[in-house]
Amino acid sequence: MTYPKIPLAQTVVQLCKAKNIKHIIISPGSRNAPLTIGFTHDSYFKCYSIVDERAAAFFALGIAQQLKEPTAVVCTSGSALLNYYPAVAEAFYSNIPLVVLSADRPKHLVGIGDGQTINQKNVFKNHILYSANLKLDLKDEKNIPVHEELPILKNLEDKFERLLGLQKDIQTHNEEEINVAINYSIFKKGPVHINIPFDEPLYETVKKLSVQPKTIEIALKPNDIEDYVLKSCLEDWNSATKKMMLVGVNTPGSVDKKWFDELAKDDSVIVFTETTSNLHHPSFFNSIDQIIAPLTPEEQNQLQPDILVTFGGLIVSKKIKQLLRKFKPKQHWHIDEKMANDTFFSLNNHIEATPNEFFEAFLPKVTHYVKSDYKPFWNRVKQNRLKKHKEYLDQIPFSDFTSFNTVLNTIPNNYILQVGNSSAIRYTQLFSLNKTLEVYCNRGTSGIDGSTSTAIGCAVVSKKPTLLITGDLSFLYDSNALWNDYIPSDFKVVVINNQGGGIFRILPGHKNTENFDTFFETTHNYNAKHLCKMYDFGYKKATDNSTLKLALKWLYLDDNQPKLLEIFTPKNVNDEVLLDYFKFIK
Amino acid sequence: MTYPKIPLAQTVVQLCKAKNIKHIIISPGSRNAPLTIGFTHDSYFKCYSIVDERAAAFFALGIAQQLKEPTAVVCTSGSALLNYYPAVAEAFYSNIPLVVLSADRPKHLVGIGDGQTINQKNVFKNHILYSANLKLDLKDEKNIPVHEELPILKNLEDKFERLLGLQKDIQTHNEEEINVAINYSIFKKGPVHINIPFDEPLYETVKKLSVQPKTIEIALKPNDIEDYVLKSCLEDWNSATKKMMLVGVNTPGSVDKKWFDELAKDDSVIVFTETTSNLHHPSFFNSIDQIIAPLTPEEQNQLQPDILVTFGGLIVSKKIKQLLRKFKPKQHWHIDEKMANDTFFSLNNHIEATPNEFFEAFLPKVTHYVKSDYKPFWNRVKQNRLKKHKEYLDQIPFSDFTSFNTVLNTIPNNYILQVGNSSAIRYTQLFSLNKTLEVYCNRGTSGIDGSTSTAIGCAVVSKKPTLLITGDLSFLYDSNALWNDYIPSDFKVVVINNQGGGIFRILPGHKNTENFDTFFETTHNYNAKHLCKMYDFGYKKATDNSTLKLALKWLYLDDNQPKLLEIFTPKNVNDEVLLDYFKFIK
Repeated sequence: MTYPKIPLAQTVVQLCKAKNIKHIIISPGSRNAPLTIGFTHDSYFKCYSIVDERAAAFFALGIAQQLKEPTAVVCTSGSALLNYYPAVAEAFYSNIPLVVLSADRPKHLVGIGDGQTINQKNVFKNHILYSANLKLDLKDEKNIPVHEELPILKNLEDKFERLLGLQKDIQTHNEEEINVAINYSIFKKGPVHINIPFDEPLYETVKKLSVQPKTIEIALKPNDIEDYVLKSCLEDWNSATKKMMLVGVNTPGSVDKKWFDELAKDDSVIVFTETTSNLHHPSFFNSIDQIIAPLTPEEQNQLQPDILVTFGGLIVSKKIKQLLRKFKPKQHWHIDEKMANDTFFSLNNHIEATPNEFFEAFLPKVTHYVKSDYKPFWNRVKQNRLKKHKEYLDQIPFSDFTSFNTVLNTIPNNYILQVGNSSAIRYTQLFSLNKTLEVYCNRGTSGIDGSTSTAIGCAVVSKKPTLLITGDLSFLYDSNALWNDYIPSDFKVVVINNQGGGIFRILPGHKNTENFDTFFETTHNYNAKHLCKMYDFGYKKATDNSTLKLALKWLYLDDNQPKLLEIFTPKNVNDEVLLDYFKFIK
Repeated sequence: MTYPKIPLAQTVVQLCKAKNIKHIIISPGSRNAPLTIGFTHDSYFKCYSIVDERAAAFFALGIAQQLKEPTAVVCTSGSALLNYYPAVAEAFYSNIPLVVLSADRPKHLVGIGDGQTINQKNVFKNHILYSANLKLDLKDEKNIPVHEELPILKNLEDKFERLLGLQKDIQTHNEEEINVAINYSIFKKGPVHINIPFDEPLYETVKKLSVQPKTIEIALKPNDIEDYVLKSCLEDWNSATKKMMLVGVNTPGSVDKKWFDELAKDDSVIVFTETTSNLHHPSFFNSIDQIIAPLTPEEQNQLQPDILVTFGGLIVSKKIKQLLRKFKPKQHWHIDEKMANDTFFSLNNHIEATPNEFFEAFLPKVTHYVKSDYKPFWNRVKQNRLKKHKEYLDQIPFSDFTSFNTVLNTIPNNYILQVGNSSAIRYTQLFSLNKTLEVYCNRGTSGIDGSTSTAIGCAVVSKKPTLLITGDLSFLYDSNALWNDYIPSDFKVVVINNQGGGIFRILPGHKNTENFDTFFETTHNYNAKHLCKMYDFGYKKATDNSTLKLALKWLYLDDNQPKLLEIFTPKNVNDEVLLDYFKFIK
């Protein structure tokens, strides 16, 4: 075996291995050479080389999102690290375990005008679970020639560190910090940053490890819900006639179906599921905006629940947020092991458990179903909406709306569907999806900055084929996602190209004013054709219903090449079709 | 006139105007709509719409670099802001006035799971001169419906703020904070961040301003160098026989030529100028590595100065850094108004003045020239090197080296030359440049992440035509730079495509080992052709000396279209040619 000579690099690599971090996304550089050498010479790791750190981190995020295991990104010193930040923030709010390993210069070379050097310590402070700032490995002192040349002050600082080192060995400190950081990432589910100073020489290798770092294990205990909590919940639940469950971003298969069958029997319970919830049940309400958008304030009031129970990640639907903030539930319980957002300014109960744990403890204790017309009433509304929805589709022109309908209805079974922000996921929420699909969308920060890279990361590790549906701005923004040698040939992309940020046309904006086109909608005439040529994607475009249907057939053929279908929709029609939809289905 | 209705938006826009911030780069979004409305409806401002915030911020940096005036970037809430970070760090280390205006949600919507919301406060903490966290404008209270719906705790918080507001009016606080931030940007030269919470409705406009924000002016005083400092410097200067001046990144024309004529007369003074110094004098040494690289330790010792005087920004040459850290000067003076890096671990005198102020106060007081063979000796070395340099060029094959020579020698007069990192600027330093050129390179963080965007920002505001010379990785990294509707038709790009990070081949790495190609050099077969087609750039490629010469003629023809010339060099030859160069010129 070949190892980097620097013990600290060995320590990092060995601990990643001990903690089962298998996928390592490396961006090129010199300062991170010891880590690159370590990871790439050990066949335990699956290493990827991706140059643009922004895309690299979202790619890693897509891998971690699928595997639910920490995935590491490795970069050199300097601004490279800062390009990880958008993905770090997304991981932070989406609870995805992302381990950032940044090489750094030794402390005495930071802040003195050395090249490619920034202040890396705690740089993600606002959006990170843990920042481990490792110390320069002094075991290898003889290999740090620059130390001899340090001025007195710097040498004193170093001596002080060395003295401290007598109290607490630097190697032990580093091992502990790495363990703590990775444990945070695993158990608290989110991004951590390990900053690793290396001094030259960086490229030397050895044939034997010089360190045997200690792994600190943490056992995961099931969550216990206190009896008094359950009791109080039960009392309120049993007497409430209007109970709403609202489910945000949720991992496919993470909640037992039997609980939904149980909930479905209760007429006092409505379950609103967002597309990203990956929950399906005939009695659930899966197109929230379809139900809510046309409601008058009086009708909204009627929907106001006594108890709101939420689980899962962030909510896409603005309309449900507005409604529940205006007509607040008397109680809001959020079920989550980690945290509870007070999204509707009425949170009164954070149940620290997984949804399964809660349902297991709670539902069997529910002794009776309260008599209620809550669900039956809204179910009639729903059926009516679905009827109108179909009618509407029959009478509207080719547009974003019809394109989403056609695309979503023709996705083969068992695909993973990755959806871009924001129009794409908002449109998707208006349709009933094939239940065999798994749906993902970067809703942590809801950015347009990394959807393609995330989808590709997903495609690389998923056994199922992946389809990304995204808008033109989001696709162009993350065009460097395609600069990736690992894209599987069954990866598919649908770009809905409405020549700009079409979503701005439906906001209460300044449509058709002087500056609207340029600064809000940012209209353009770019397309994905040239990028597909450059990065060897199959490419077809569609401009109406018939070309779209043909192109969709082509898209799902296995041609041993990733493919992209670009649908050009009429930007001056799309917004009217969408706004009229909400009027029509009333 | 049309103004945003929200007073805080008016305040920000009016103060930007009062402070002469003219160029405003806006990325699309809804939360920043009040700012977008304000800036785009006032013809005082030149507004640009750029979607990718990473590219937008580097574009703004390029404008500010040229104008030496603060340039503003405006983005919506969420991860958009994080994409500014690479450029913010570059601005921080390159002393470029960049004003980040980020729209934010009101405080009660942060951290509760609302969409597109992150923790924006102080997010650039490690690399920012000042972070102004503005408070939600309460004057417009009746337009903030959500406040009525706040839960008790949040309402109390708000009431507390309102009570505080009685003591110190929120409007006054905000005006002061904006003034302080922009003043920092102007006088301390660097990036500042102004975070601006807005509540809905965001799109309303009014015909009259409702605020008249107060401008706080700061007068810039010339720096005074204390007599005792000058006296002590003079004593040492007059007795030292080996004085080295080393100039890093420096604005063209910022130092009076007469001082160089003066310095040139002194045989005890060697002036090393980096390419980015924009300084030219026949007696100066402008190819540092050409002189130093071939030296034995004994010869390096001979070059060791008694006094090292530096000014300008960060130093590109690793070799001079290594040499001066090994053979430390007895004294190191750094001349800079703002700060002094202890790059060589021997700084003993930070002279807080501009180079002109220092020379004006100092050089006339130098009464005699010390007898010395310091410059004559090294001048003989230099002449010898230049002779060998020419001989070498005559005998080597087509490569990066010959390409840089050919390209640099054919740039028309009075161009602005923007150079990418790192190979591009390192190669450029080996050649003597046409004195009418102005040279810029992002050496603050030395990143490959924004060179093209920076060059385009420069091209947009500069009266001179701009040429960018960059490598393939750096060009591909910042490919979104071309997604820009403002690129002038006289903008030119030369991409030296050596199919990867060629620079890694000359490092003491693992060339030709299993992983080297993928993880260090990151070899690829991409080119710029498709991007040029996509973004309507003229494109030609060169693969040898003769096609290069023809293509260069084409490049400088005025064809009413920006142009890109891609030079494909042989990656297996380039590194040998460069390494042999340093041996040959000895």
